[in-house]
Amino acid sequence: MSQLTILAICGSLRAKSHNLTLLKYAQQHAPQGVEIVLADLQQVPFYNADLTEKPAAVQQLIAQAASADALLFGCPEYNYSVAPALKNALDWLSREPDNHLLAGKAAAIMGAGGGMGTSRAQYHLRQIGVFLDLHFVNKPEVFANAFAGSFAADGSLTDERIQSAIVQQLQALLKLSRQVKAV
Amino acid sequence: MSQLTILAICGSLRAKSHNLTLLKYAQQHAPQGVEIVLADLQQVPFYNADLTEKPAAVQQLIAQAASADALLFGCPEYNYSVAPALKNALDWLSREPDNHLLAGKAAAIMGAGGGMGTSRAQYHLRQIGVFLDLHFVNKPEVFANAFAGSFAADGSLTDERIQSAIVQQLQALLKLSRQVKAV
Amino acid sequence: MSQLTILAICGSLRAKSHNLTLLKYAQQHAPQGVEIVLADLQQVPFYNADLTEKPAAVQQLIAQAASADALLFGCPEYNYSVAPALKNALDWLSREPDNHLLAGKAAAIMGAGGGMGTSRAQYHLRQIGVFLDLHFVNKPEVFANAFAGSFAADGSLTDERIQSAIVQQLQALLKLSRQVKAV
Amino acid sequence: MSQLTILAICGSLRAKSHNLTLLKYAQQHAPQGVEIVLADLQQVPFYNADLTEKPAAVQQLIAQAASADALLFGCPEYNYSVAPALKNALDWLSREPDNHLLAGKAAAIMGAGGGMGTSRAQYHLRQIGVFLDLHFVNKPEVFANAFAGSFAADGSLTDERIQSAIVQQLQALLKLSRQVKAV
Repeated sequence: MSQLTILAICGSLRAKSHNLTLLKYAQQHAPQGVEIVLADLQQVPFYNADLTEKPAAVQQLIAQAASADALLFGCPEYNYSVAPALKNALDWLSREPDNHLLAGKAAAIMGAGGGMGTSRAQYHLRQIGVFLDLHFVNKPEVFANAFAGSFAADGSLTDERIQSAIVQQLQALLKLSRQVKAV
Repeated sequence: MSQLTILAICGSLRAKSHNLTLLKYAQQHAPQGVEIVLADLQQVPFYNADLTEKPAAVQQLIAQAASADALLFGCPEYNYSVAPALKNALDWLSREPDNHLLAGKAAAIMGAGGGMGTSRAQYHLRQIGVFLDLHFVNKPEVFANAFAGSFAADGSLTDERIQSAIVQQLQALLKLSRQVKAV
Repeated sequence: MSQLTILAICGSLRAKSHNLTLLKYAQQHAPQGVEIVLADLQQVPFYNADLTEKPAAVQQLIAQAASADALLFGCPEYNYSVAPALKNALDWLSREPDNHLLAGKAAAIMGAGGGMGTSRAQYHLRQIGVFLDLHFVNKPEVFANAFAGSFAADGSLTDERIQSAIVQQLQALLKLSRQVKAV
Repeated sequence: MSQLTILAICGSLRAKSHNLTLLKYAQQHAPQGVEIVLADLQQVPFYNADLTEKPAAVQQLIAQAASADALLFGCPEYNYSVAPALKNALDWLSREPDNHLLAGKAAAIMGAGGGMGTSRAQYHLRQIGVFLDLHFVNKPEVFANAFAGSFAADGSLTDERIQSAIVQQLQALLKLSRQVKAV
């Protein structure tokens, strides 16, 4: 079966981000034939229509999105909504003519945060995906609690239910990705 | 190609509802091989877990949902959110064990209302669909303005852009329905 | 100090609703000078513009809202959104000319449900309140977990943190209600 | 009567932003005794908990928020949600211990964009405000259409209904600000 490539985008810029940890766990446990590539947003500036040239970091992000079959979001919650760095990456990608880099692709969301596991941000992200024409995996949703035992002191993901949910979500993403590409 | 059945559910109970008009237009312009069945919510009571028997109108709704391949919603906007009759129909359907009547099906939304064409209600409906595990058509969205020329004085739909959007949305629903049923 | 009247509306119609329990707890622990009246939605039909007369249950609801200084919602979550009975009560009340029964009043929300304590429904309810011109208490939010120890086997509220949050929320509602009535 | 200071924050970084035009119109038509200060987000970096020092632009923003009695947002809509620069400014401000710079203040939102006037972004912003403990003006909402006659070719605001809505919204903000500061 042909290789499937997933672009993973993390909304937190912290080096030890729990959301990044979730994406790395996914990367290490991807189904056979699936490669997960991590985007690097550290040098991606705020989108501004006045900018006449695309910075190198944006060009790299665009190239990665163009090559990807599906998307995976590490979605922190800041103030009950999406992290600006994640939203900004999507804003840049959507400006490619006719949103052609993203439209029609499958996507999944995982998040680590307070007691509700970034759910409030995740539903905002799903609304963003309507305009982007993404097809989101509905179940399982991945809501990790960063403050109550999902992660060890060294930052590693130790919660077996979350580990299992990530693996199941990747399987669902793989399935949905193949479905929405079918004619 | 096999017949595809779509269950259409209108959130307004008015006899001359503009949202019902949209669904009837869709019904009359369904692609070949697609049958659109209209649900009747007039006798569906509020869901209440204390009720021990399912009223006949609920049983009929359940039977129609079980037979349907996809769903089509006529979505009014009351006070910036979904009409209770529509939400209540979905609440009844979701109580069937494991949501098995709805899970994994494709769905589309059309609405007629004020200047924003019920968009605020439609995004709430999309969030409801996450739990129901529906796969919504993203584009085109159908936002008809009930007060500025989309409908004639006799209530008929006369706005050609909306007519065209409905036809395109049905095509997109047909396509998505086939995709999400593919293995 | 003058008496303050709060109309409490519960979105669940169940006799043993956990959300009703929250409202009754609030009723029994209202600050001095505050009376909490419970609305009865059992006989309130779906709003339908074709109805030419207001049923008695609707007339009673309208009278109670007219007398109330503020509103308190017991907000279950059904399928990631608001319970139809609650939304429907608000739809009826909003039809009074110019929304004059509700506009400008203070309101607060408490909910009991699954792991997220009906938060997804509560944010939808807040959007509904924008059109209704309600001023919601922001903090504390009351999210009770109906399945993990907030309630005893007999249905009574035993979670001290939730009990405390309810009392604090009532104080905040009382304060906000006085503020938004100030000129 | 004492001077009231409003901090206006624009989510677009474009020099000729229509949203900035709305805020400047508000600035020029502020009620007597009200001063509207425009925040400058051009040099505000993405919030990142790894940063150990606050950049000068962030320090200035914090000082302006500390001095402000109320907030006014120019809210573009990018991909059905809030512009990252606006969200990021709020994320920085919320990190001040206990959100003390913002909590309890009144706020208002105006936006210019496509046919729905950034309404989808504005409702997300209102949810963000729940955590920030802002009290938003409900009415009038300001939805300017950047593509259908609200602005002249030179970018100036020429739509009299929007001009009037801005003036009314400022009056409502002034009133709400005084109310929520009352004891």
